[in-house]
Amino acid sequence: MAEGLGKLQQRIGYPFRQLGLLEEALTHRSYGRPDNERLEFLGDSVIELVVSQLLFETFPKLREGELSKMRSSLVKEESLAEIARGIELGRHLKLGKGEEATGGREKASILAGALEAVVAAVYIDGGFEEAFRVVEGLFRGRIRQMEEAWRDRDYKTQLQEYTQARFKEVPRYTVVAERGPEHSKTFEVVVSVGGRIWGRGSGRSKKEAEQRAAEEALRRLDEEA
Amino acid sequence: MAEGLGKLQQRIGYPFRQLGLLEEALTHRSYGRPDNERLEFLGDSVIELVVSQLLFETFPKLREGELSKMRSSLVKEESLAEIARGIELGRHLKLGKGEEATGGREKASILAGALEAVVAAVYIDGGFEEAFRVVEGLFRGRIRQMEEAWRDRDYKTQLQEYTQARFKEVPRYTVVAERGPEHSKTFEVVVSVGGRIWGRGSGRSKKEAEQRAAEEALRRLDEEA
Repeated sequence: MAEGLGKLQQRIGYPFRQLGLLEEALTHRSYGRPDNERLEFLGDSVIELVVSQLLFETFPKLREGELSKMRSSLVKEESLAEIARGIELGRHLKLGKGEEATGGREKASILAGALEAVVAAVYIDGGFEEAFRVVEGLFRGRIRQMEEAWRDRDYKTQLQEYTQARFKEVPRYTVVAERGPEHSKTFEVVVSVGGRIWGRGSGRSKKEAEQRAAEEALRRLDEEA
Repeated sequence: MAEGLGKLQQRIGYPFRQLGLLEEALTHRSYGRPDNERLEFLGDSVIELVVSQLLFETFPKLREGELSKMRSSLVKEESLAEIARGIELGRHLKLGKGEEATGGREKASILAGALEAVVAAVYIDGGFEEAFRVVEGLFRGRIRQMEEAWRDRDYKTQLQEYTQARFKEVPRYTVVAERGPEHSKTFEVVVSVGGRIWGRGSGRSKKEAEQRAAEEALRRLDEEA
């Protein structure tokens, strides 16, 4: 802990009034009591509610099943641990010697638990609005990625709906090129409707390339209409 | 729906500004869109956070594992359905004909989902503080029961710790009487330490009677000391 807690508070964007709460949130049970387990219990629910609301608002057309899947992927241990790494939470943890020796500072379960505990500490110290803002900041990037992925996924669906309505036909996707070494290939795809190519796209997977192609086709069909 | 939504709002203790939100929360998917599934997704998290905080505050000595078990039992489908029955939510549901014919109005899954949706509707309409207050009202009785059960459970543990420290002995519980018909028996138990009876208790189960006996023994040992 060469760095003080000031930096951590800057990174989460919340200055604590009761710094003891933040210290408790960073104390793993291997170090001694009071540890962060009770805060972890509470913070888990705070994160879940904020993420649920962000998904609810970001995806107004999605049903419960899809929203639940997205939420699970956002709040699973590994995702929380990555977010914890992003704010360098590990260096601030108080760990027992045994945990320290076996790399506890990098363990996903310990990092995820500490992140939940820090969120609970903000919730207790500053109330729901502040906790909401902090969690929103921590998850913003991931939710934006999901939004983009969803919009992309939507291009294929949109194109199919459009061509069925206009041409009574479904779009055909064809891989026209595969480039690069096995571990980092790029695919190029064209999409045709009624024998005419309307869009072309490339990506790290066939799926991604198809989405790009569908996106272009939609734009061109739209311009032409 | 012979009764208006006014009564329901009274029973949950929240008057809606946007009554359409409450109506959506009461619409099962069998009836048509917009149904309550997205609200159910959100409300589930609101209930979980409020219940977590109430448990966190009510049981300051409990660890995460025990708190999690309590939370699970409070928010499981059957518990939510019972709470929904307590506020007569069933009569306000909008159901499709098929669901109506097969007793949907009484189904635990439908009632639990609608309760979650109603809580989300309060959350959207009135904010977190209002939702907190409503959920607290709905769960207050159950959490109080848990608190009493926990305190009772503590008597036996406390007595054992006490007698081991003072007498190097564990308490002995003996059933001295069983009264009443099979389906509503009363048990009477005495607890002795070092051959002397210190407490006596009765209850609807042996466990309850033992707790009462331990409670009395603790008081008498305390008075004597």
